Amino acid sequence: MPVIAVLIPSDTSSPERMPPGLDAFEGRAEVRITDPDGLPQALEGADALFLWDFFSEAVESAWPHADRLQWIHVAAAGVDKLMFDELAASQVTVTNAQGFFDRPIAEFVLGAVLAQAKEFALSHRYRTERRWVHRETRRIQGQRAMIIGTGAIGRETARLLRAVGMEVRGVGRTARREDPDFGDVVSSEELAEHAGWADHLINAAPLTPQTAGLISAEILAAMNPEAHLVNIGRGESVDEPALIEALQTGGIGFASLDVFAEEPLPQDSALWDLDNVLISPHMSGDVVGWSAALAEQFVENAERWLAGETLNNIVDKDRGYVPRH
Amino acid sequence: MPVIAVLIPSDTSSPERMPPGLDAFEGRAEVRITDPDGLPQALEGADALFLWDFFSEAVESAWPHADRLQWIHVAAAGVDKLMFDELAASQVTVTNAQGFFDRPIAEFVLGAVLAQAKEFALSHRYRTERRWVHRETRRIQGQRAMIIGTGAIGRETARLLRAVGMEVRGVGRTARREDPDFGDVVSSEELAEHAGWADHLINAAPLTPQTAGLISAEILAAMNPEAHLVNIGRGESVDEPALIEALQTGGIGFASLDVFAEEPLPQDSALWDLDNVLISPHMSGDVVGWSAALAEQFVENAERWLAGETLNNIVDKDRGYVPRH
Repeated sequence: MPVIAVLIPSDTSSPERMPPGLDAFEGRAEVRITDPDGLPQALEGADALFLWDFFSEAVESAWPHADRLQWIHVAAAGVDKLMFDELAASQVTVTNAQGFFDRPIAEFVLGAVLAQAKEFALSHRYRTERRWVHRETRRIQGQRAMIIGTGAIGRETARLLRAVGMEVRGVGRTARREDPDFGDVVSSEELAEHAGWADHLINAAPLTPQTAGLISAEILAAMNPEAHLVNIGRGESVDEPALIEALQTGGIGFASLDVFAEEPLPQDSALWDLDNVLISPHMSGDVVGWSAALAEQFVENAERWLAGETLNNIVDKDRGYVPRH
Repeated sequence: MPVIAVLIPSDTSSPERMPPGLDAFEGRAEVRITDPDGLPQALEGADALFLWDFFSEAVESAWPHADRLQWIHVAAAGVDKLMFDELAASQVTVTNAQGFFDRPIAEFVLGAVLAQAKEFALSHRYRTERRWVHRETRRIQGQRAMIIGTGAIGRETARLLRAVGMEVRGVGRTARREDPDFGDVVSSEELAEHAGWADHLINAAPLTPQTAGLISAEILAAMNPEAHLVNIGRGESVDEPALIEALQTGGIGFASLDVFAEEPLPQDSALWDLDNVLISPHMSGDVVGWSAALAEQFVENAERWLAGETLNNIVDKDRGYVPRH
C-alpha cells in the first residue's frame, strides 16, 4: 500500500491543524500524520508528502530520510520556503495549490487599489481624531497598473483590474506584446525604465533568484511620488528598508503589503509606525473556506496519483512556479 | 441681455469659490456673482441662477425677489437642499449635475464593498496596535448587493458590481423584472422582506418623501448580522440613531458612510467612536477635477439655454431627480 506522509503544524492551538478529507484513502493508502519533529521518521518509506504546514522549512533537514519519495504537494501558491538544491535536482515531483488563491488575491489587490485611490486609510485615521476633512480623491478608471509576475495570480489580477476600466501592463521574464491578459509585457530587467508609468505597481511574482530584491531602491526611486506599491507576492522581492525610507520621505505615496521579509512582521519594524501603509498579515488569499478547499485540492490530486494519472499543478522546480500551458 | 445670477459660498477661504469658465458669456449675458447675503438683490431681474454653492438653502428665503427666473442649475446630483413648495409649483426649470458623479461614486461603493469584505478597517486598527492577527476574509465574487435607487448613480454602481462578479438587485418605486442593469427590482415598500438577502445594502437614492427614513430600525433589524450598509445617497434616508445601535450591538456588521443626517458630522456623534464604520466627509464623487467638470457642465447647459435649445438633466421637481429616458 502506498504511504502518504502529511506534515501538520506543531502548534496544537492551530484552528485548522488537521486537513479534512484524508479518510478518503482508507484501505488504499497508509496516511502518516506528523509534526515537523517526526518528519524524518515519517519520510522513511513514504511515497508522497503533503505539506499541509505549507510554510514549513523542515523538509530540507529531513531529506536524507526520503528514501522512496515520488511526490510532494504544497498547500500554498509559493514553493520558495520548500525548495532547496537537492530537491530541485531530484526526480521528486512538486505540485502546489495554484488556482484557489487567484481570485481572492486579485480581489484583495483591487480593494487595495480602490482604498488607496479613495484614501480610506486617511479616513480611518481622521475618524479616530474626530476630523471632517473633505478631500479630492482619484478615479481608478483609466489609471495605470503594472503587474509584476505573469502567472495565474497576476493574470487574474490583470483581468479584474481591466474589468473596472484600468490600463494594465505586465512585467515578466521576457518582453512581449499582445499578451491576452496584459497587452504589453516588459522585461523585469527593464523595470527601472518602466516603473514611472504606473499609478499602482503590483508584485504578484513568486520568489525566485530573478525576483529576490527586484523592487530595489532604484525601482522605488523611479516610481511616481504619488504611486502605490502593492505586494501580495513575497516580502523578499522588495528592499524593505528602502521601501520604508521611500514611504517616510514621500518617494512613493502608499504601500499595501500582505507579505514581509520576516513574518510575523517584527515588533520593531518601522512599518508599524507609518500612516501610509496597509499591513495585512499574509492573508490576502485566505477567504472563508480556504482551508477545506486546499485539502480538497490535495485529495483530488492524490486520487490522480493513486490512479497513475498525470498530476495537476506540477511546479517547474528550476523556475519555482507552475509554467503556463 | 439675459441675466445669469451665480451663487458662490460666503466662505472666502473656499479653494474653489469661483466657478471657472464664466467669461464664455461675455457680451452675451450679464453674469452677477453673489454670496448668499446678496442673493435677494441679485435675483431681481435674473433669468437664470447657477447654484455653484450647491448645498445652499438660501434660495427659498430670497424667492420673492425672483421676478423673472426661468432656470436654476445646481452643481450637485441631489436637489433636496434646494427644493421647496413654491419652486416645485412654479414654472422654473431645475437642472442638476447628473452624470459626472456616477462613475466616481460607483467606484467608491466598490471600494467600500471590498474594504469591508477584506477587513481593511480592522487591519488599520491592528497596525496602530502593532498586532499581527491572521483572519479568514470574504470573497466578493457571488456576494449579494442590493442597491436602493435605480437612477444614474445606482445603475452605474450596479454595472460595476456586476462586472466584478457580484449578484445585484435594485430597490425602486415599483417592482419589476428584467431591468437591464439590476435584473430584479423590488419595491421600496417591500424592502423589509428583502433586506435579509443582501450582503451589502447600498443607498444610492435621492432624498424624497419616499426615501426619508427608509432605512429604518425595522430594515436594519431585517439585515444579516454580518451585512454591510453603504450610504452615498443622503443621511436623512437612514435612521441614524437606529444605525448606531445596530452597529454597537451587532445588528449589522459594518457601515461605510459618505453622508449623514447633519454635516459636518457633529463632534458628539457616537459614530466617531465606532470601529466598524468608515466615515467619509461627503466626498465620494469629488474626484480630482470635479470642480472644473461641474462648472463646464453648467457652461454647456447655459449655451443650450442661450441658444433656445432643450436643457440637459431636467429634474422632475415632484420626484426630486432626473427621470430615466
